[in-house]
Amino acid sequence: MTIEHETIRLAKELISRPSVTPHDEGCQTLMSEYLSPLGFDIESLFFVDTQNMWARKGNQSPVFCFAGHTDVVPTGDVSHWQTPPFEPTEIDGFLHGRGAADMKGSLAAMLVATHRFVKDYPEHKGSIAFLITSDEEGPFINGTTRVIDTLEARNEKIDYCIVGEPSSTNEVGDIVKNGRRGSLTGTLTVKGIQGHVAYPHLANNPIHAAAPFLAELAQAAWDEGNEFFPPTSMQISNINGGTGAGNVVPGTMTVQFNFRYSTEVTDMFLIAEVEKMLSEHDFEYDIEWIHNGQPFLTDEGTLLESVNEAITKVVGKPAVLSTSGGTSDGRFIAPTGAQVIELGPCNATIHKVNECIKMRDLELLTDMYYNTLIGCLT
Amino acid sequence: MTIEHETIRLAKELISRPSVTPHDEGCQTLMSEYLSPLGFDIESLFFVDTQNMWARKGNQSPVFCFAGHTDVVPTGDVSHWQTPPFEPTEIDGFLHGRGAADMKGSLAAMLVATHRFVKDYPEHKGSIAFLITSDEEGPFINGTTRVIDTLEARNEKIDYCIVGEPSSTNEVGDIVKNGRRGSLTGTLTVKGIQGHVAYPHLANNPIHAAAPFLAELAQAAWDEGNEFFPPTSMQISNINGGTGAGNVVPGTMTVQFNFRYSTEVTDMFLIAEVEKMLSEHDFEYDIEWIHNGQPFLTDEGTLLESVNEAITKVVGKPAVLSTSGGTSDGRFIAPTGAQVIELGPCNATIHKVNECIKMRDLELLTDMYYNTLIGCLT
Repeated sequence: MTIEHETIRLAKELISRPSVTPHDEGCQTLMSEYLSPLGFDIESLFFVDTQNMWARKGNQSPVFCFAGHTDVVPTGDVSHWQTPPFEPTEIDGFLHGRGAADMKGSLAAMLVATHRFVKDYPEHKGSIAFLITSDEEGPFINGTTRVIDTLEARNEKIDYCIVGEPSSTNEVGDIVKNGRRGSLTGTLTVKGIQGHVAYPHLANNPIHAAAPFLAELAQAAWDEGNEFFPPTSMQISNINGGTGAGNVVPGTMTVQFNFRYSTEVTDMFLIAEVEKMLSEHDFEYDIEWIHNGQPFLTDEGTLLESVNEAITKVVGKPAVLSTSGGTSDGRFIAPTGAQVIELGPCNATIHKVNECIKMRDLELLTDMYYNTLIGCLT
Repeated sequence: MTIEHETIRLAKELISRPSVTPHDEGCQTLMSEYLSPLGFDIESLFFVDTQNMWARKGNQSPVFCFAGHTDVVPTGDVSHWQTPPFEPTEIDGFLHGRGAADMKGSLAAMLVATHRFVKDYPEHKGSIAFLITSDEEGPFINGTTRVIDTLEARNEKIDYCIVGEPSSTNEVGDIVKNGRRGSLTGTLTVKGIQGHVAYPHLANNPIHAAAPFLAELAQAAWDEGNEFFPPTSMQISNINGGTGAGNVVPGTMTVQFNFRYSTEVTDMFLIAEVEKMLSEHDFEYDIEWIHNGQPFLTDEGTLLESVNEAITKVVGKPAVLSTSGGTSDGRFIAPTGAQVIELGPCNATIHKVNECIKMRDLELLTDMYYNTLIGCLT
């Protein structure tokens, strides 16, 4: 049986476990049973509703960590699927099933690459680790962030981290995420005085009061981005005011907006800018901020070099670096000082019905992970 | 039994009929039985769910019309009332009950004033009419507007009209409404493209696109009003955009706004102004307009003079003229060319629990109506 086949076999075993977030359904047990004979110590860390695993082979630096998640998003209406979502099925060279691309295929490739690497390089330097959670698709409260807290408390550091999120667009390895934007959400409540539209002098319309502020907020520029990040963007996601009645001036209006921000600014800077803008308008308000994640960037270093050499070796050309897209668990790992890269399969079918992955890509991804290990730990 | 007592007796009879809009519950039958012996011809006009009455004595011009409604607003939780709302009860000189002030007290005063006038002035000129509906508190679709249509179809004209709405503020006759602002409602749907906040270039945020327009709309001035009307005002009553999720750029936003406009502008002018303003912004939209009522103004003439002479005679000073407040059925009568005035009791308790009217005010109101009839028809 070839290495490639082993990856596909493991992917099928993982997909057949219906681990809808935050459930693990034995996926991490399967992984630990695979890693344990290779010399890994396994820590099972269960927080509230989330199964996490920290597996480590070796006690030296540098620590190379594969990070990922065993949970998957819900299937939606199963009758819309071409094949049962938790019965892995091969169709025309593709492996179908929920989680095939996000990210059980990556987990299988990580396992097989590690197996191959420790057999081929038994005297490798440093350590290899796996940081696996079952709540990446959920509220990410009891997953990676809590495992990182545990590691930080005992001063255990990760040096290089590959997150197996499906980063690729058209061909595996065409895109590597070498950072992610930060995410900051503001919820503004504009306070007016409710009244009847026929007596506007007795009311104070919060929509009227805040409209110039909203126009200014929507038109503002926050930075120009940089080599790796597009300019910081702000989007108003929700706006609500009014009782539903056409003759009532509402007493309040709520506006929710979200920043996706580059490393050129900080959450504190954005908060200060918005609150300064608010202070220049004449209305009463409350504002609440939720900081969803710091931005991170891995713009140089051993990991980035090793990943690009590995991808070039496997598919003949290096990846394009990107920091676009949503957030990932990389945001919890990067602040510890680790170099963090996201490399995984094509993301065209993730979170959709008929999620699938090209089986050949799983074999290539295994080779990429394997060669990255060589670059970092030999 | 004095005239004053007769008004209070009739008011009690009307209040005891639980005519929650659009129900009449026999109020108009009671009125027609009172008017018929005085020489009135009665037409009962029932449209869909609404009981209307057109009663007329005489076939000459000018036609003096009392207009009003027998329906009342719901009571709300009866346990919050001091007395059962449909059991008229005297307390410390006040008559309590739903409809006491809005406007069964006025109806009783109209009936008694008419009785007294036709007895005292049997040879009066012109005609006396009553235009009564049971849907003034409802959607006003099958009420006064349909009776007016009927009259217009046979070219029957009203020259002078007193609407019995509770126009007074502190003392009966202190305020007369000699007009009402027009009401125009626009519902704007701003069209964008839904997307993920992390990919703003793939989305088109309708809130961002429309914010400058809303700021301009809220700050615009439409006219300066005139001697009788305050400046036209516009109030945004409802604004809604967003899926509730914080990471989704909404595809549409809806904004509802209402004009209360003076006789210095027209509905067509306001629509043209808003649509011109919209055309100067760069977003796609749909807009729907609902014209709730033309403005009207009675700034001179026999009716206004007669009303003011009558009020001065009864309480020693003329009324203050006002066009403030919401709409009334006067908006349907004025466009026919009639002079329209609203004169009724104090409005402090209308649409509230423990609605009541000072019994002495009902006697004074009867005298005011009586003397107005003298001014117009003798």
